[in-house]
Amino acid sequence: MEQRKETYFRVESDSIGSREVPKNAYYGVQSLRGFENFRITGNKLNKEFIQSLAETKKASAITNGQIGLLDKKIEVAIVQASDEIINGNLHEEFITDSIQGGAGTSMNMNANEVIANRAIEILGGQQGDYSIVHPNDHVNMGQSTNDIIPTAGKLTAIKLLDKVIRKLEELQSALSDKAREFDHVIKMGRTQMQDAVPIRLGQEFGAYASVVKRDIKRIRRSREELKIVNLGATAIGTGINADKKYEEDIVKNLSVVTGIELTQSEDLVDGTQNVDGFVDASSSIKTCAVSLSKIANDLRLMSSGPRTGFGEINLPAKQNGSSIMPGKVNPVIPEVMSQIAFNIIGNDVTISMAAEAGQLELNAFEPVIFYNLFQSIETLTNGIDTFINNCIVGITANEERCRELVENSVGIVTALCPYVGYKEAAKIAKTAIKTKEPVRKLILKEGLLNEEELNNVLDAFSMTEPGIVGNLKVVK
Amino acid sequence: MEQRKETYFRVESDSIGSREVPKNAYYGVQSLRGFENFRITGNKLNKEFIQSLAETKKASAITNGQIGLLDKKIEVAIVQASDEIINGNLHEEFITDSIQGGAGTSMNMNANEVIANRAIEILGGQQGDYSIVHPNDHVNMGQSTNDIIPTAGKLTAIKLLDKVIRKLEELQSALSDKAREFDHVIKMGRTQMQDAVPIRLGQEFGAYASVVKRDIKRIRRSREELKIVNLGATAIGTGINADKKYEEDIVKNLSVVTGIELTQSEDLVDGTQNVDGFVDASSSIKTCAVSLSKIANDLRLMSSGPRTGFGEINLPAKQNGSSIMPGKVNPVIPEVMSQIAFNIIGNDVTISMAAEAGQLELNAFEPVIFYNLFQSIETLTNGIDTFINNCIVGITANEERCRELVENSVGIVTALCPYVGYKEAAKIAKTAIKTKEPVRKLILKEGLLNEEELNNVLDAFSMTEPGIVGNLKVVK
Amino acid sequence: MEQRKETYFRVESDSIGSREVPKNAYYGVQSLRGFENFRITGNKLNKEFIQSLAETKKASAITNGQIGLLDKKIEVAIVQASDEIINGNLHEEFITDSIQGGAGTSMNMNANEVIANRAIEILGGQQGDYSIVHPNDHVNMGQSTNDIIPTAGKLTAIKLLDKVIRKLEELQSALSDKAREFDHVIKMGRTQMQDAVPIRLGQEFGAYASVVKRDIKRIRRSREELKIVNLGATAIGTGINADKKYEEDIVKNLSVVTGIELTQSEDLVDGTQNVDGFVDASSSIKTCAVSLSKIANDLRLMSSGPRTGFGEINLPAKQNGSSIMPGKVNPVIPEVMSQIAFNIIGNDVTISMAAEAGQLELNAFEPVIFYNLFQSIETLTNGIDTFINNCIVGITANEERCRELVENSVGIVTALCPYVGYKEAAKIAKTAIKTKEPVRKLILKEGLLNEEELNNVLDAFSMTEPGIVGNLKVVK
Amino acid sequence: MEQRKETYFRVESDSIGSREVPKNAYYGVQSLRGFENFRITGNKLNKEFIQSLAETKKASAITNGQIGLLDKKIEVAIVQASDEIINGNLHEEFITDSIQGGAGTSMNMNANEVIANRAIEILGGQQGDYSIVHPNDHVNMGQSTNDIIPTAGKLTAIKLLDKVIRKLEELQSALSDKAREFDHVIKMGRTQMQDAVPIRLGQEFGAYASVVKRDIKRIRRSREELKIVNLGATAIGTGINADKKYEEDIVKNLSVVTGIELTQSEDLVDGTQNVDGFVDASSSIKTCAVSLSKIANDLRLMSSGPRTGFGEINLPAKQNGSSIMPGKVNPVIPEVMSQIAFNIIGNDVTISMAAEAGQLELNAFEPVIFYNLFQSIETLTNGIDTFINNCIVGITANEERCRELVENSVGIVTALCPYVGYKEAAKIAKTAIKTKEPVRKLILKEGLLNEEELNNVLDAFSMTEPGIVGNLKVVK
Repeated sequence: MEQRKETYFRVESDSIGSREVPKNAYYGVQSLRGFENFRITGNKLNKEFIQSLAETKKASAITNGQIGLLDKKIEVAIVQASDEIINGNLHEEFITDSIQGGAGTSMNMNANEVIANRAIEILGGQQGDYSIVHPNDHVNMGQSTNDIIPTAGKLTAIKLLDKVIRKLEELQSALSDKAREFDHVIKMGRTQMQDAVPIRLGQEFGAYASVVKRDIKRIRRSREELKIVNLGATAIGTGINADKKYEEDIVKNLSVVTGIELTQSEDLVDGTQNVDGFVDASSSIKTCAVSLSKIANDLRLMSSGPRTGFGEINLPAKQNGSSIMPGKVNPVIPEVMSQIAFNIIGNDVTISMAAEAGQLELNAFEPVIFYNLFQSIETLTNGIDTFINNCIVGITANEERCRELVENSVGIVTALCPYVGYKEAAKIAKTAIKTKEPVRKLILKEGLLNEEELNNVLDAFSMTEPGIVGNLKVVK
Repeated sequence: MEQRKETYFRVESDSIGSREVPKNAYYGVQSLRGFENFRITGNKLNKEFIQSLAETKKASAITNGQIGLLDKKIEVAIVQASDEIINGNLHEEFITDSIQGGAGTSMNMNANEVIANRAIEILGGQQGDYSIVHPNDHVNMGQSTNDIIPTAGKLTAIKLLDKVIRKLEELQSALSDKAREFDHVIKMGRTQMQDAVPIRLGQEFGAYASVVKRDIKRIRRSREELKIVNLGATAIGTGINADKKYEEDIVKNLSVVTGIELTQSEDLVDGTQNVDGFVDASSSIKTCAVSLSKIANDLRLMSSGPRTGFGEINLPAKQNGSSIMPGKVNPVIPEVMSQIAFNIIGNDVTISMAAEAGQLELNAFEPVIFYNLFQSIETLTNGIDTFINNCIVGITANEERCRELVENSVGIVTALCPYVGYKEAAKIAKTAIKTKEPVRKLILKEGLLNEEELNNVLDAFSMTEPGIVGNLKVVK
Repeated sequence: MEQRKETYFRVESDSIGSREVPKNAYYGVQSLRGFENFRITGNKLNKEFIQSLAETKKASAITNGQIGLLDKKIEVAIVQASDEIINGNLHEEFITDSIQGGAGTSMNMNANEVIANRAIEILGGQQGDYSIVHPNDHVNMGQSTNDIIPTAGKLTAIKLLDKVIRKLEELQSALSDKAREFDHVIKMGRTQMQDAVPIRLGQEFGAYASVVKRDIKRIRRSREELKIVNLGATAIGTGINADKKYEEDIVKNLSVVTGIELTQSEDLVDGTQNVDGFVDASSSIKTCAVSLSKIANDLRLMSSGPRTGFGEINLPAKQNGSSIMPGKVNPVIPEVMSQIAFNIIGNDVTISMAAEAGQLELNAFEPVIFYNLFQSIETLTNGIDTFINNCIVGITANEERCRELVENSVGIVTALCPYVGYKEAAKIAKTAIKTKEPVRKLILKEGLLNEEELNNVLDAFSMTEPGIVGNLKVVK
Repeated sequence: MEQRKETYFRVESDSIGSREVPKNAYYGVQSLRGFENFRITGNKLNKEFIQSLAETKKASAITNGQIGLLDKKIEVAIVQASDEIINGNLHEEFITDSIQGGAGTSMNMNANEVIANRAIEILGGQQGDYSIVHPNDHVNMGQSTNDIIPTAGKLTAIKLLDKVIRKLEELQSALSDKAREFDHVIKMGRTQMQDAVPIRLGQEFGAYASVVKRDIKRIRRSREELKIVNLGATAIGTGINADKKYEEDIVKNLSVVTGIELTQSEDLVDGTQNVDGFVDASSSIKTCAVSLSKIANDLRLMSSGPRTGFGEINLPAKQNGSSIMPGKVNPVIPEVMSQIAFNIIGNDVTISMAAEAGQLELNAFEPVIFYNLFQSIETLTNGIDTFINNCIVGITANEERCRELVENSVGIVTALCPYVGYKEAAKIAKTAIKTKEPVRKLILKEGLLNEEELNNVLDAFSMTEPGIVGNLKVVK
């Protein structure tokens, strides 16, 4: 506010008293009180959320118009004002902080005031002349913060989840491409950071694609759940002050306005006080973030080196790695992916706590739920974007190194178990580690298998597929 | 161990060396090492988990028998030994701690050793004579810790989730009963702890039933996901050392053994390294716990008093409330419900962290995931049981008090908005609060509505249902 | 970047290759890469952090100048450029996102490039002509991201903590004022939401002041710990490439530059890889947030009503409470306080996870630690500010209501225990609740105490102080 | 309960009604109600907590005796009964679950009843004959659950913290020993999983010792804070029903009984409702757990291999690593350490939530706080014990491998920066990685330094200490 050098003010009043508002501001006294009471994060409302809010106002005006509660003229003006916001205008008039007390009343009144004042202007009036269009009586008609805010929150989440789902699909596809590209690269598998048995690099990337696929499914499911909204509930779900016909039509109209197939909550009291849908959405995002951070960690492990680490793959160099160590290339993209995940896991705790703290007919803590949920979804979307384009697609394999490590390893001794037994195989392994001799040589020396048998059993590729080599006698 | 006064020991050896094991113990050296390495929580393995482990061993023996890899005699003995465990015997032989390093190798070997030694005994041998039945070569045939442990974990979770779902159904039903019982009790609704507008107590309990219904649906969905298991994967999902036919049949056989319709993971590498199914299950349980704690908080608020609180409902007295304050009855059951929720929310963080920490082909932290997940599900189940039987079913309403509060409230002024406008209504409200005069009287005094209109508009019951009183002119 | 309509670019190169940079930009190619790789939160670096970064650069230049490693001319230019940033200029040239991969290399290089280019300009050169002043060789001389970033992070936290401590002191003082103001207001104490025994409202506010005092002490302690910095450590704590004299002097010089008494870490390897100081600071902030949210909850409980709640105190009305319910005043400030606390508790989880994920010589996740920690401290500071000014100082007590509730309560029966025993007192309580008769009347009726004794025992004020009424025979 | 085959019962009654109690049970009807209401975790009370509870009862009896409120005979009997519990007897009579509603009333009454009944027995009476010694009037005299339970909780935490501090001191010492042992082992340092510059293995272990030292300091500080107890507060801190002299003496007497220097809270109202001391203790433990898990991760990284990983150190083999892969040795002890940390971080969230949920004069959620805090401290203690003895002390270094990796690395090029500049050094590094030629050779080829200069600059040991090689001209 301080920056604006308005010379003139208009005076507005609310139940607290009178107060100057910048003359040309579309927001009004209630937005200003909210702004002043809550200078918390410095982050304004999410852009998508502002648009969703305007959509609920537009659908309400249409509905109230249809059932004859709202003058056509006013309806049209409200719809036009809302459309301007939906199209990205007037967003700077939304001045309330993302974290605010009051269950979102300040955000809702901010929308009501901006739309009312713009509608007044459209109708030829002066901003602040609420006798023309009133923020509460007209813009908020049939509504309450308590149904508008959860509904706008759900719309926003639905739209943001849509974006992250699309990014995840890209990711799944990029990982699948890599799975195909690396399907022939045989490398050592590791469990608990210790050499295990051979695997193909393509199988590893395939597994990443598989978990992402499941995460997409889960997020989709959570998104579906959010389509049940409580418009028509008004203050506490009993529908007080909402016309019966408004209640019947509003959700259908909002579906048309948004292009999203919404349903009205069967139990509006429940729909107004419970925010489990947001907790569920946050949980799905969190589970996905856990999966992605695990993948990121793997990439950091496999690309560790270049000379003193695993050195199996190369991540594309995206920036100088160090201000002091020349030539250093660091896994900066996986690192940011993990940081995003840590942030999301913390946000999930915040959301759970805020949800748990709901009391009686309303959860007053939706602002912090939204702030965290929207941040989780958006940073995940952004993170996946850079993860795909600045990391995954550019990964290359050090095939030779991978092969050498397999050949040098002791873990291949596992493949002998069905033929020589666990105990005998363990003895070979122990000797190999101690003497540094190759496993293959030790087996021949011990006369456990002949060369041909050994070739069959220790064929690295066949070790990466199930099945025992058929023609050998197994230990029973 | 210290307590047992075994006079004689047998000597067993593993790759670490030789070690005395109590002569009659069914567990062996590897269990003992695990026990000694991990004296962490003092809590042994979950009972259901031990049984699930035995089920995987039984199904494996059957499968290996069917495909001719295991001698019929050994198969039968392993099956019998496993059945004994499934029936609740030999559980004290499972000596490893719930939290253990090694991705569950100690638990798996504990099962292998107990079953092997009992099978040896069945076949007439001496415990420890692994030439008869070998823990690794026979009991663990075609398996690895890395497919057995996640599978047994999923089986356990499926069974425990089944129990909690049944309890939640009981809870939903008990809440619905109360919704019907209290449907006529008109009381004040509250948002943000402030008087809002009237609601029926039955509507509140109905909303509780509604959210529980959604939670059941979510938990069911998570349970369904856990039915995909990775048996056949062996060490890292490549199926090394598992016979092709074993891989094909094992999950079908395990379905028969457990009576649970299981599916084999399409991507066994993914199935072995990713634990997102557990994260998802924990998330569903957490979301449910959040819902239940919110309900518990509401009950504590509504029953606050008896004389200086809301006093709208009475919770059944279940114990003396205080060691110093006579006659005090405290909401002890809702209190324990919330504590369970806090614990579950913390457990969910632990599970997320442990899942995120998975590396490459395996997540080594499944033990702590299981420990927390099983605790979450079981304590929730137990909590719901006491919540229903010692709280919900015995709740009574203070109808008279509820009615008085509505009649005294200022919030009913809301119902006037459609007729006199927000601003006028606000003025009445402000005066009422200041002068302590009834709203009804003020409206008549101001001549805003006549008595008949007022009776229609302020009818408390109709305020709890949507709709504007038809025959009144509304503000446009 | 898109917004800038630069017609001309300069070309810079790094190890990735060449790239156009807006001709007049002070940042360079490495900042730009960082900006492009990490479009994550949309939140730029914290203002205090940018200034702290500049302070480390200034102190380094001074030190390098003093020991003769840096040309005086270059030193002076670097110092001047740094001072401009310290004074709040050039902040828009810091273009990297708060959450970034690379352990902060992008932030450090952003500072190095901005300072180098500004210094070049000061020395009469063209931006981008790093032969005059080089971002790495001159601005970053003797330093590494790995000592600069943790140090700048600590400086920032120290400054932000200082602000929150001052706000907390104001809060403590405001609460103490209220404790004095309300010292005579006798009201009912409640435990577990049930009527307990009398207390004075002033005692309650005194308890709030007491816990805040402890929180201040803890935060101070955490702040003190952060004064140990690792400048001189360079890449991994071994001090590679830092001149011995630089290492000796740099922290003393930084103390002078910042006015904060800093110490150099005794073990620079430890100081470089461990971020426990930040975890500790976050923990102190979290503990404080927990305390404040508890206070906020109490205020919401005590001000519940106005007619159907506790109604013991009034919070100042700060905005219209509802878009639909006229006259409603909601506890919006305590609500925002609790939301801030939920956010901080979640942030603490993020910080713990990021700290735990550190590997070997460095923690690569400092950016997300800083992002969350700075947000926690700043939102807490802002929250306390509104908490004091828009809530605490304006609280008023409903003395009459408080007194009535005490007189009506059953809990005062507790005071009889020492004289009539727990069992007898419990009987009276039970009857009182059932028959709704006053406790006082029942005692007289039962002849347990005479009127004078009763007056002594049930004196409300004396019940709020320890001690048994002396001249009465107590039950032994 | 089910297991006991009591033929006869005695009948006891409380405000709920009459109920059979096993005739010889020392617990009474209130314990039994608590047991039946809260079958939640199946975990009984912590042993140390039971003893601490008994200590508070003993100190109270002594105090009440000294001031003449309690008959000498009864005092002596209560003291003797308490001593038996302190000495480890009668613990099986503590039947209530760790997680319980009622702010700990059930635990407190369990102690009151067991002590009363044992005292009755000592005085020659029959269990249940409370006319001899009464659980409330005598054992609980001058007390309330609300001062006894927090005090016993603090005593327990103090004792448990003492143990963990001693274990941490052992750990610090073990790490310092290793730091000395490995001081000559030069190896490659790594940041962000990429080769950085040389370090000595001893420096790494030294850094671990350093962070542990700080953690000890923090835990000590938290422990100190817990020594402020609220005995004398009774129900809500006003000291109702506690004799003035009791209030003055009880804490001094408890100090004598426990041998711990306790102080009475200056503000008993604060001391009764706020649990920040426990949150702070949990935070310190969590911060320490974060440090230890980071160390555990490092050990897993450095010991990765044996052939395809870093292979710099060997962890002692403590058990067979795999049920399928012979010869595999896994880092099971570091794995359990990290799992403990994950559990503790989750517990910290639970504790924060439970603390935040406190209302007005009391926090009703202390049971879940204690359950989680005691578990955190005890599992950490146990984890450190196995970490030291089964891991740290047995670690060996692969010196030759470490040296080879340094010599092969590119990171040593960093040491050239002061002499040839960042840009030139980066060029060398890039060529080295591409051509796989040694850095040393390339520098000579380029004629950047002569052999002698090179030997000085690239001396691995000197690279691990600060300082630029003096006699070389540095780039300015």
